[in-house]
This record gives sequence, structure tokens and C-alpha cells, in this order.
Amino acid sequence: MTTARAYAATSPTDPLALTTIERRPVGPNDVLIDIAYTGVCHSDIHTIRGDWGPIAYPLVAGHEIVGTVTEVGSEVSRHKVGDRVGVGCMVNSCRECVNCLAGLENYCLKGNTLTYGSVDRDGTITQGGYSTHIVVVEDFVVSVPENIPYEAAAPLLCAGVTAYSPLAHRNVGPGKRVAVVGMGGLGHMAVKFAHAMGAEVTVLSQSLNKQEDGIRFGADHYYATSDASTFKTLADSFDLIVNTISAPVDLQAYLSLLALDGTMVNLGAPAEPLPVSVFALMGNRRSFTATSIGSIAETQEMLDFCAEHAIAPEVELIAAADVNAAYERVLESDVRYRFVIDAATI
Amino acid sequence: MTTARAYAATSPTDPLALTTIERRPVGPNDVLIDIAYTGVCHSDIHTIRGDWGPIAYPLVAGHEIVGTVTEVGSEVSRHKVGDRVGVGCMVNSCRECVNCLAGLENYCLKGNTLTYGSVDRDGTITQGGYSTHIVVVEDFVVSVPENIPYEAAAPLLCAGVTAYSPLAHRNVGPGKRVAVVGMGGLGHMAVKFAHAMGAEVTVLSQSLNKQEDGIRFGADHYYATSDASTFKTLADSFDLIVNTISAPVDLQAYLSLLALDGTMVNLGAPAEPLPVSVFALMGNRRSFTATSIGSIAETQEMLDFCAEHAIAPEVELIAAADVNAAYERVLESDVRYRFVIDAATI
Repeated sequence: MTTARAYAATSPTDPLALTTIERRPVGPNDVLIDIAYTGVCHSDIHTIRGDWGPIAYPLVAGHEIVGTVTEVGSEVSRHKVGDRVGVGCMVNSCRECVNCLAGLENYCLKGNTLTYGSVDRDGTITQGGYSTHIVVVEDFVVSVPENIPYEAAAPLLCAGVTAYSPLAHRNVGPGKRVAVVGMGGLGHMAVKFAHAMGAEVTVLSQSLNKQEDGIRFGADHYYATSDASTFKTLADSFDLIVNTISAPVDLQAYLSLLALDGTMVNLGAPAEPLPVSVFALMGNRRSFTATSIGSIAETQEMLDFCAEHAIAPEVELIAAADVNAAYERVLESDVRYRFVIDAATI
Repeated sequence: MTTARAYAATSPTDPLALTTIERRPVGPNDVLIDIAYTGVCHSDIHTIRGDWGPIAYPLVAGHEIVGTVTEVGSEVSRHKVGDRVGVGCMVNSCRECVNCLAGLENYCLKGNTLTYGSVDRDGTITQGGYSTHIVVVEDFVVSVPENIPYEAAAPLLCAGVTAYSPLAHRNVGPGKRVAVVGMGGLGHMAVKFAHAMGAEVTVLSQSLNKQEDGIRFGADHYYATSDASTFKTLADSFDLIVNTISAPVDLQAYLSLLALDGTMVNLGAPAEPLPVSVFALMGNRRSFTATSIGSIAETQEMLDFCAEHAIAPEVELIAAADVNAAYERVLESDVRYRFVIDAATI
């Protein structure tokens, strides 16, 4: 067992507080990671506050983890002591359903084991990355290329792969017109990826406040969705709309922006069903779809893509003690573009 | 001008009645068709009764038309006198938008000219196929192969191509698991097409009443959706679900039947938006889409496919005077599987 320091939630409302947790002994297929940085994801807040259902407290959130391998199990072959590695939203899956066998553990039909708040195989509740150490089975640990800035690598493990997956899956590239709805943690990465893939990128943001950033990240165009004329100007013009906003949006307004065979893909999901006009889909033979993070293979592919194209998230480094204040700023969308906890401060 | 006899609606509620209408003189690009048979489509009833908005009366419905060319304009090259031809839901389109230029007039961005109830280029309201004659620009007239039974060919022009288009567009073939929801005019054709394309076909019908027919049409499996266990048995199992029901359905229940990257395509559209759970889409990376009839090229391709595979709709031939009674039976789903008006009785 390894005793790790961690910031844990003890109730839906109390501030996260420093505590210690036990990490399991390193099994034959496990690696022990000395955590360096952990990103703060909006879903950490949703989970802790019980927005997505009741959870067991205390809970350590955090699923954007980078760190260094300090111990490996006897049968580990993918990683060695000293490697810079990452852990994202999943730490295991059933490994036998058709989706797992297809290498898409993120669509595991039996439900994958989430990095925190899931019941692990040994019956314990998984605890995440707001911590000094973590033990993870090697297959769910990816390699982080050295030329990605260390602290900036953390958000790639969730926000990065979630933004990357639908773009890669839908073969975004030159000649494709891609719109990114919302330019927060996910959105700013979608802009960088789509631009690097060669697409023509348009940001659709509530206001023009972040326009300068958007252009710097690679957007070709930037429109405010609060301006109704945006929806007239851009009618029938996109091949792909990536919606990074989890809150309900006016689906019909966005669908009307899709060209022939265009697809709108949601990366987040509002709790309530969204009303969709089938007539809006019939025009231009449009599709509405959603994706859920990305597979382990896609995560590695995305990290390698970042290394090749010198892409990294924009981050604001914080001390662990500041995580509660950071949560308030996330809830007010006052972050450009991702908080990352320096685990050395835990 | 040609004077044609026709059955017209004079109000949303009065029975259709025999009248005469004038067809425009045959222009250089027009063909005059002596109508032989016209199918009765559910949308004829919706339109006449004002379910889809106010319309101008009198109106002659009918957009599943087959007949013989009796006169051609000076510049007509695609058809000649004596040819067996068909006319479907459209008689023109803008011919200059990106979708028309791509050969998909059914997605014309300026709105195509429908066979009945649309404002034609000369400012008149188009009048459909419950009639003895019609004049149509040659580009919107298709050839009907001789080996398709004449009266059975009529429903192919709307129901046929509407069922065929999403199957062909999504490359249905051997190894694909296709479900057809509803086995009426559209559904029974979707079963025949998907089977002929080599797919494994499952019918999802309210009851098992038409099971024998479904198996005869080529279905491999037949389930009643009124039996809740159907949705458990078939979870995560289809690549494509073709929903032929225009009325609202429980979208989440059907989406749960889609396997990885599966798509549900609606061929009809309820007037009100349907609530869609984004979480249901996220599981298995599912998509929801809709198509609108088919292009002229697809219509010809579908007719040739029918000729090649000896496929034809199941029809019940009626005299024109029986159309009002037929409407009542359509509304009660009491038709196997399409009424066709014998135009010789008009």
C-alpha cells in the first residue's frame, strides 16, 4: 500500500480538504505514478456536487493526470520507471465486450471503470488525481511525449482527447468547414486540433470576448451567437459542428448551420433530453450525434499529434489549496482555459 | 392546353370530387403523360387536410405517378412518345444551388417544386396525379422498366425511393444489421430493399399481425414493440434503424438498440420536435438523422434495382371514386400495403 496525500470532497457542499488515502499495492500489471499535475475538469465539480447522481464520500476527483512512473509490476511491459505518463477518465473496462475488443474502451458496454467514483474490481471506490500518487493498470496509462510542456499536458487526458476524438473520427482535414461551439476548456482545444488538421475553423461563442484568443489558436472566423444575424449569415455552411457546451442549446438554430450531410456532435450532455426537430434534420440530410471522451489508443494518438504539431492547452497553474476558489471561477467561466493543480503543493 | 379529369379536394373536410383541370401547353422541355396509375400516399391526406399548413383549394393530390408519354417538347431528349415513365414528389428545383448541382434536388436549398400544392414557375399551383394527364419537365420524369408490374410501379415513385435512399446512401449490404420500424407503405419496401441488398433485416412492428408478410418480404426477424422485452433482447444490436413512422416514437428506446456507430434515420417527421437524450447518443457513439425522399438519379437507380431484383410494392388497386373510402382505411392503417388508383376510372 502507498499512502498518498489528496484533496477530497467530504460532502456535496463542503470545500475540498487535505487528507490521506491508501493506494493499492502495485500488482503485476500496475504502475505507481508520482503525480506531477492534475487538471480541473468541470465534470469534477458536477460529480462532487452530486449533479449526476449520489456518490460516496469522501471522494478525490481529478482525471487529467500526468506524472512519473516510480514503480512497475512484474508483468508490466508498456512503461518503465522514470517514464512520463498520463491517466485520463478511465482506469479499466470489461475488456471482453465487442466495443472493448474493438479498442474502444470508452464505449464499454458493461460500463468502464472511471478514474474516480467508480466501483473498482476489488470493490473499493476509485479515487482520482487531486493527489500525490496513483496506482493504475498499465493498459490504461499512456505515454506523454517529452516535448509537451509538463503542466500543460494534464488537460489533454480528458479535455484534449474529448475534443480530438470526434474530429479524428470524422476525418477532419483540408476542405472541411468545422464550427466549434463554445471556447472553454474543450472548445479551445477543438479549435487548435481542427486548425492543425487543416480544416477551416469557425468559433461560435456567446460573445466576441475571446475572439483574439480564438484567432491565435487557429480559428479562421469568430462569431457571437448572441447576435441573431450569425445564424442567417452561416446557414447551410458547415460540415461539422462540435458542440462543447453541456448546457441545453437551441439545437434547431445550430442544425440549420449544417450543409449537406453535415453533422453536429455533442461532446457534453445536458441532463434533460433536448428537443430535436426532425424537419431540421431532413433539410440537408443532417445528423445529430454525441461522443464520449476517447479510447486509450486515441488518447495516445492525440498526445503524439500534439507533440508533432506543438499543440498544448492554455493553462493556469494553481496550488492545491486554491482548488475551491478555482471551482468558483470554473462555474463562472472565468478561466483561460484550464486550471491545473501543481501536485507538489498537495 | 390539355384538359384533364381529376379528383380534387375542395376543402380540408369535403370528400374529393371529380372535376376538370387545365394542364399547361407542352413546352420545349416538357413531356405530356397519359397517367395510368397513381399511388395514395399518407402525405396526400396530411396535405389536403391542412395538417402541414394552409393550402390553396381546389387541390389535386398524388405524387406516385406512372403513365405513358403521349407528347414531347421540341428539345426533349430523355423520353419519347410511348415510353413508360414515372413522376414522384418533385417536378422542378432551382437547379443552381450547391445541392441541386450535386444532383440532390430533394435537398434543394431554395425549396423544390412539389408535384402538388407548390407555386410553379408560371405562378400557378401545381396539381398532382389523381388525374388523367400531367405535363412535367423531362428532367423530373424517370423511366419505368417494363418488367416492373405497371400498377405496382406507382408507389415506387415516393414510398419506394424514400425507403431506398437511406439504405443506399448508408451502403447497406451483407454483414449490416438493419431494423425497419413500422411495416406500412414505406416499411414493407424498406424490408424488401434491405433484404435484396444482402442485409440481416429485423422488423419492429407494433404487433405481430404482419409477421408472415414480413418474413415473405425478406425479414430475418420480426418483433413486436408492444412487448417491452423486445428492447432488452435487441439492445446494442443494429447498425441502422430505419424509422418509417411519422408519429412521435420513444426515441430513447430505439436509440438503445443501436450498436457502435449505429444510426437511426427517420423517413417521416412528426410536427413537434422529438426529445432526444444526448446520453443515449453518447453510448455507442450513435447518430440520429433523417432523409427526405430521394433525388431523381436515386429514383432511377431504385427503379432499375427493382427491375434487377424483381421487387415491387404490394398494392390494392382501386377505382378513383373509392379514394375517399381508401383515405379512411389509410388513416386506420388498414391497407396492405398501398392503394393505387386506376386512372382509367377517372
